[in-house]
Amino acid sequence: MTSGLAPFLAPKSIAVIGASEGVEKIGGRLMNNLLRHKYAGLLYPINLNRSEVWGVKAYRDLASVPEQVDLALIAIPAAGVIEAIEDCAKAGITRVVIASSGFADAGAEGAALQRRVVEIARRSGIRIAGPNTQGFYNVPAGIAATFSPAVNVDPGPTGKRPRIGVVSQSGGLGFSLYNRGRGDGLDFSSIVSIGNQCDLELADYADLLIDDPDTRVVMLFIEAIKTPQKFIALAKKAAEREKPLIVAKVGRFKAASRAVSSHTGSLAGVDSAYDAVFERWGVIRAENIEEMLEIAALFTRHRVPRGNRVAIVSATGGTAAWLTDICEAHGLELPEIDAGRRQRLMEFIPPYGSPLNPVDITAQGLRGYAPALEIVEDSPTHDAILVCITLAQEARIAREGEDIAKLVRASEKPILVYTYATASEKSKAMMAAWDLHFFSRMTGCARALQAGLVYHRFQDRFRSETPADEAPSPVAGEARRFLAARGPTLCEYEAAELLALYGIDTTGSIAANEEDAQKAAAALGWPVALKVQSPQIPHKTEAKAVALNVADTDALREAWRAALANARAFAPDAEIRGVLVQPMARPGIELIAGVASDADFGPIVMCGLGGVEAELFGDVAFAPAPLTEAQADAMIDKLKAAALLAGWRGAAPADRREFAALLVKLSRLAWDARDAIAEIDLNPVIVHGHGLTVVDALIVQKGNP
Amino acid sequence: MTSGLAPFLAPKSIAVIGASEGVEKIGGRLMNNLLRHKYAGLLYPINLNRSEVWGVKAYRDLASVPEQVDLALIAIPAAGVIEAIEDCAKAGITRVVIASSGFADAGAEGAALQRRVVEIARRSGIRIAGPNTQGFYNVPAGIAATFSPAVNVDPGPTGKRPRIGVVSQSGGLGFSLYNRGRGDGLDFSSIVSIGNQCDLELADYADLLIDDPDTRVVMLFIEAIKTPQKFIALAKKAAEREKPLIVAKVGRFKAASRAVSSHTGSLAGVDSAYDAVFERWGVIRAENIEEMLEIAALFTRHRVPRGNRVAIVSATGGTAAWLTDICEAHGLELPEIDAGRRQRLMEFIPPYGSPLNPVDITAQGLRGYAPALEIVEDSPTHDAILVCITLAQEARIAREGEDIAKLVRASEKPILVYTYATASEKSKAMMAAWDLHFFSRMTGCARALQAGLVYHRFQDRFRSETPADEAPSPVAGEARRFLAARGPTLCEYEAAELLALYGIDTTGSIAANEEDAQKAAAALGWPVALKVQSPQIPHKTEAKAVALNVADTDALREAWRAALANARAFAPDAEIRGVLVQPMARPGIELIAGVASDADFGPIVMCGLGGVEAELFGDVAFAPAPLTEAQADAMIDKLKAAALLAGWRGAAPADRREFAALLVKLSRLAWDARDAIAEIDLNPVIVHGHGLTVVDALIVQKGNP
Repeated sequence: MTSGLAPFLAPKSIAVIGASEGVEKIGGRLMNNLLRHKYAGLLYPINLNRSEVWGVKAYRDLASVPEQVDLALIAIPAAGVIEAIEDCAKAGITRVVIASSGFADAGAEGAALQRRVVEIARRSGIRIAGPNTQGFYNVPAGIAATFSPAVNVDPGPTGKRPRIGVVSQSGGLGFSLYNRGRGDGLDFSSIVSIGNQCDLELADYADLLIDDPDTRVVMLFIEAIKTPQKFIALAKKAAEREKPLIVAKVGRFKAASRAVSSHTGSLAGVDSAYDAVFERWGVIRAENIEEMLEIAALFTRHRVPRGNRVAIVSATGGTAAWLTDICEAHGLELPEIDAGRRQRLMEFIPPYGSPLNPVDITAQGLRGYAPALEIVEDSPTHDAILVCITLAQEARIAREGEDIAKLVRASEKPILVYTYATASEKSKAMMAAWDLHFFSRMTGCARALQAGLVYHRFQDRFRSETPADEAPSPVAGEARRFLAARGPTLCEYEAAELLALYGIDTTGSIAANEEDAQKAAAALGWPVALKVQSPQIPHKTEAKAVALNVADTDALREAWRAALANARAFAPDAEIRGVLVQPMARPGIELIAGVASDADFGPIVMCGLGGVEAELFGDVAFAPAPLTEAQADAMIDKLKAAALLAGWRGAAPADRREFAALLVKLSRLAWDARDAIAEIDLNPVIVHGHGLTVVDALIVQKGNP
Repeated sequence: MTSGLAPFLAPKSIAVIGASEGVEKIGGRLMNNLLRHKYAGLLYPINLNRSEVWGVKAYRDLASVPEQVDLALIAIPAAGVIEAIEDCAKAGITRVVIASSGFADAGAEGAALQRRVVEIARRSGIRIAGPNTQGFYNVPAGIAATFSPAVNVDPGPTGKRPRIGVVSQSGGLGFSLYNRGRGDGLDFSSIVSIGNQCDLELADYADLLIDDPDTRVVMLFIEAIKTPQKFIALAKKAAEREKPLIVAKVGRFKAASRAVSSHTGSLAGVDSAYDAVFERWGVIRAENIEEMLEIAALFTRHRVPRGNRVAIVSATGGTAAWLTDICEAHGLELPEIDAGRRQRLMEFIPPYGSPLNPVDITAQGLRGYAPALEIVEDSPTHDAILVCITLAQEARIAREGEDIAKLVRASEKPILVYTYATASEKSKAMMAAWDLHFFSRMTGCARALQAGLVYHRFQDRFRSETPADEAPSPVAGEARRFLAARGPTLCEYEAAELLALYGIDTTGSIAANEEDAQKAAAALGWPVALKVQSPQIPHKTEAKAVALNVADTDALREAWRAALANARAFAPDAEIRGVLVQPMARPGIELIAGVASDADFGPIVMCGLGGVEAELFGDVAFAPAPLTEAQADAMIDKLKAAALLAGWRGAAPADRREFAALLVKLSRLAWDARDAIAEIDLNPVIVHGHGLTVVDALIVQKGNP
């Protein structure tokens, strides 16, 4: 999708339309940044009134520029942008960054202007970044095509090294990630502010960065995804290339409240679809700026852990104890150091220290960190090591830093240095000279290791798993035709018919009159349940249009009348299609299975603890359809209710495999009919020792008012 | 408890025993720090071999010092400390800090040495800090009686201002809090490393700091509390003085696994008692160093919010959106700015900005933050304001900082400045000059506001509430005698007798033979439950020594035999006291109520979702006994199960008041018998529309093997 885009971030010549010397104006700040970062290509300031800008020869218009221009940066008020784009077209420029605001970001008028820009661009074969973008900064190439002041920090070492790419829907935030990351000694490839995405979008830039051999991870700041399918293609490609995407997705809580008809719908917040898609493709979600940078630091500056067993080497017991708590809160374990290594450690650790885990060499430890680290480093029972040190003063690190750096470089394991006091400038300079990265937050060390481990496990799974088949099922056409012929809300007996197509059995039969019902009950076996079927009464229990535990013919006669009377009282105009007669379900574990269609990502399958209390405990898991059996199984693993299926407190286990199979079948239906189905609710699904019973089924079609 | 201790942190003269010039030795580092921070009192280095140390006249022993010494700092190897303490006693010194390690921190031999130190001190009227302490630092007085290198940063402005006190069980961590806090521009009073607490303990120093008029908050780093009752007295005093305690309590996950007999016991992790006690007294628990400092910053540098409604003023929409998510995750709300203020804002915010909330003045906003802040500041629908700014460059803050600082100072609300890029040194200096604090983490702003609000609400409650009566109940003596006459595990019928003393009704009667049981069942009404009573079979269901829903005399005959046979098969040697006959409980909400005795804090009452799945969902709340009705009610409020009591999804509400009353009664029993009772489990307690049924009761006494 991005062929021909690669030069976008590495233009050999740049025209700045609206170049000026005033640093209050974005055209001035763009020029200033390009020059300050020593842009090595040809630079053409365009300014009607000046022959020179910041000492560079200026041109009155694009037509006067003597050579072909690779990239135009537009930094003039919105009103003039149409003419500028037309000038670009005339000059044969095919790549344009529009920094100017006042387009789709500014009401209906601005949106109309933006549409005109897109029209001209399409017609002329121009690709556009922005508008309303702060531009981009290609760090190793020294191309600061941005008016952001946050780029004015030391860009760090040049040359090949694992770098971080940033693509941000917020320019302020994107360049701030760079600014902060540089403060932590991290290395960047390019930072891109995507603006309004009138043409090029987030996934396009991220794709370029995934292709860049020096970019090891890509950070994405997302408010809303423009083309979900492009994003999924990007995530797949990143997974295949083993380049983690570290994503901040904001707007978690602001999601507009939606009208939902099902338990599944109300349990599936808008954000659960994002989480489900992110998890499927190994995308790492970060909750704050620090966490984003710390996770990126792990992937660019450290090895990735292969397991969750951490050893801590510290000179302060208290800090190490706190670090232990924080590690354990992140799913990491701290097994003891083995006896042999303990003995070697005790040769130089004072008696008031500890050789267990954390290894406390004490503040007065004579021989210091490096010898302890050397002993712990090759412990076969540890996957990662945290070295807890103070960089507030230089004395200790000056003595030991180089030895520590050698051990870190040589080790196959991640060895993370953490400073518990603020690093002094001298310490920082020494650490940089040894190329030794350090963390400043306990939580950061633990979160980074956790994210690394989760990604490692994702890759293991990703490379071995057979992906779900996305081809339509043999019955897909039939299912779609069935749905097209039905109303917005399917009655339970209709839902049962559709589910049967996918091998999902429900019980019972529909009765048109009491006589039929008596026959059905006798055939099914007493006691039975009666459920009035009407498309206008999807929640039958609320309407008291349900009778449970109907024990015999007399009881049925009474229940039949009462249920129908209640239904008519609840909704006098309801069309009543008959009464469903079902045998009462055997006991078992009450779960819920469902589907909610996400506006961006399509059908998301849900499973969880069921019954009327489903929403109260919110013990649920989500994954995008279609599902493989392994994926369904992984969903169940995430539930607390999994312990119930396994046989809670001596109870017999329930048929988990059958429930997983149900989820797979349900996911096939949801996938085949993704254009039609809004929500599916199987609640409760009672899972027995062998087999399961789908007690109730609700299917709602899209466009349901 | 601390009378006479005040001069401990402000000695007028100090002797340093083991003073030297080598900064590798703690005696050298102590001298160096005292001199570097310009100790203004009289300083007496004690050194056998030198006449001068760091240019200060030295003495060969304490006896040679001509004047009375206020405080001795001992910095010699452990072996010489006994003699040094004896010298102190002879010289009439009553306050001694032992920095040396090698005491209780170093095995049995060290512990013995420490006991000798304590004996001598007691005998001579000496109060001791340490041993194994890094000392203390009284910042405003410039007394750096510590060998920690972390104190060597700019101590900040002198004079009266709200300061942070630190008392830490880890010297490394305590001084690191100071070091980091100074980096954030926070002001400190004293930092104390408490070491082994052989005499003075954490609560003693914290008490001194609470008394200090300049100390506004006290940070505590706790591994284990020496005297829990002293800690509680401290927490009460801090609450009365409205000085928040901000506590890091580590060892959360490492707590030794304990043998427990009840659901309550297994649900009550070791740490839940700490949380319960902290909450009772308004102690704020922090999860990491950054959070500790950020919360302290709120209390020392800002107003405390009176409500949870936040307004954000930002120049970058993306950052503001993320900040919004983080605020909402912390229980804060972001209501829209009212129409009148919106109109005033739109007079200078460009059309691509926003006057809602967050208020986005845009990166190109002409008039900047101050005018927007001025409009938002007095919004009656907002309790706090976050100003989201970049301090990476100085241009903007140089123009606006002073105006912002004025608004912050004049406002009755907290106005927190947050920088999304790393603050430049020049920006920092300007902010310091305006005395304008800023935050560097989004999470920090939100967490600090949350903590401030929780503390404000705690104070409201604390000042209005009637505390629980700690006097023994009229039946306390009887209860204690009853327990003393019983075995380690009370049979259900025995537990019932004890509970009845406190007005907790259970149902049923004990039957010695089948005939009695038939009579009891007839009297109680069928169906009934039978439960074999044996102190050796506390978990009757596991032993199948229970029969439920026994419908009639025939069924009872059968059930009687089966239950007794099962009990004998399960525990052939069990002493069987009879069979409890109970009516089957009416339906209702299944809850659990219990008590677990904490080794430090005594009886902790628990309530939660009950039944066999209690542990699975962990929907529980804890509070220390005794409870008032209001406190019991607040516990119930914390449960998800509270929604069930209120009438979930149209169900009738249950008798919440009766359940609260049960908790109060249970807490009285637990309090009266706190020396005897280890665990109580009422599980399930079935709460009906009116009244409740305690279905099962288990009481375990202390010393139960």
